[in-house]
Amino acid sequence: MEFPSRLIEEAVNEVAKLPGIGKKTALRLVLHLLKRDEEQTQTLADTLVAMRTKVKYCQKCHNLSDNDLCTICANPRRDNSLICVVEDTRDVLAIENTAQYKGLYHVLGGIISPVEGVGPSDLHIESLVQRLGAVDNEQVKEIILALSPTMEGDTTAFYLQKKLRPFKLKISTIARGIPIGGDLEYADEVTLGRSILSRIAYE
Amino acid sequence: MEFPSRLIEEAVNEVAKLPGIGKKTALRLVLHLLKRDEEQTQTLADTLVAMRTKVKYCQKCHNLSDNDLCTICANPRRDNSLICVVEDTRDVLAIENTAQYKGLYHVLGGIISPVEGVGPSDLHIESLVQRLGAVDNEQVKEIILALSPTMEGDTTAFYLQKKLRPFKLKISTIARGIPIGGDLEYADEVTLGRSILSRIAYE
Repeated sequence: MEFPSRLIEEAVNEVAKLPGIGKKTALRLVLHLLKRDEEQTQTLADTLVAMRTKVKYCQKCHNLSDNDLCTICANPRRDNSLICVVEDTRDVLAIENTAQYKGLYHVLGGIISPVEGVGPSDLHIESLVQRLGAVDNEQVKEIILALSPTMEGDTTAFYLQKKLRPFKLKISTIARGIPIGGDLEYADEVTLGRSILSRIAYE
Repeated sequence: MEFPSRLIEEAVNEVAKLPGIGKKTALRLVLHLLKRDEEQTQTLADTLVAMRTKVKYCQKCHNLSDNDLCTICANPRRDNSLICVVEDTRDVLAIENTAQYKGLYHVLGGIISPVEGVGPSDLHIESLVQRLGAVDNEQVKEIILALSPTMEGDTTAFYLQKKLRPFKLKISTIARGIPIGGDLEYADEVTLGRSILSRIAYE
């Protein structure tokens, strides 16, 4: 694509570096900004830079935060006997949106993936071990592994189980099965098979 | 969605103001920027602001430009007996990409749409009339209307035909028909019907 303006071309190229945004979409977004007030572009640019330069990571759970401790870790009403281990902040948000979980989190910052060259040392696993070993954290009773049911997720879960065994805690994983509202007919065999194996007795 | 950080929330809200980007996608983009170097976010912000504040519109055809005249209008090798009227810069880029057109353009900056409150006076129609009336522009022989085949596009085309009639120029529109590679079976009736009415004789 040949652009009529170098300024447009540079902006399009930068926007197209974002994941899932191609040149055509980038151009649409850039032209949209041109139709809006200059102020909107300025605000967009300022908030992005402020976010990138000022945002912190919670020193305890590595969740995104404005302060040294995130709002979840700093909240005394959260159940600190539970730690839910997730891949990234998006998973924290997804679980928080369910309003079903009142414990704490630990954000790994990724998942073990030999293909992408991500090993256990690249993730916040050591800090989880330290967190469990710390004197003031003796109240933790259960670790919930909420990782994606992919090969990488299962590998990470397996590694964590081995690593956390010495603490003699209850270690669980989120339930796998047929999604609520899902049709049996359209479920894949692996999920359906697993959902029969891990069937839940009526109480 | 409740965000763990006000900085993240503000950035997500600003990104989600862009067309076709919802909160979830905005969050994905923001988290992506967090994983990349600070420099990338800074460059993105800088190029967007530079684009928004410095880009000009061609004084002749209203296309986006770095200078007073766009590269197309300033190019002496373009055929200045042809002016192709389009809705916006994206259409110029699309037509340029075909490499089939060597004339000039006139960018209306929109399309007549009573629903969205866009009337003829909001578009660069008067400047087209002035362009055709100017002494140094007597060489224009044909106006090609390349507008979308929607109700708004047809309305705009009809208005332009009426407005340009006094100049006694050839006025044409781009061909409507079955797209190359398109299957007759899946073409809508209106397009198929029109393609029969405006059939092209083999020479």
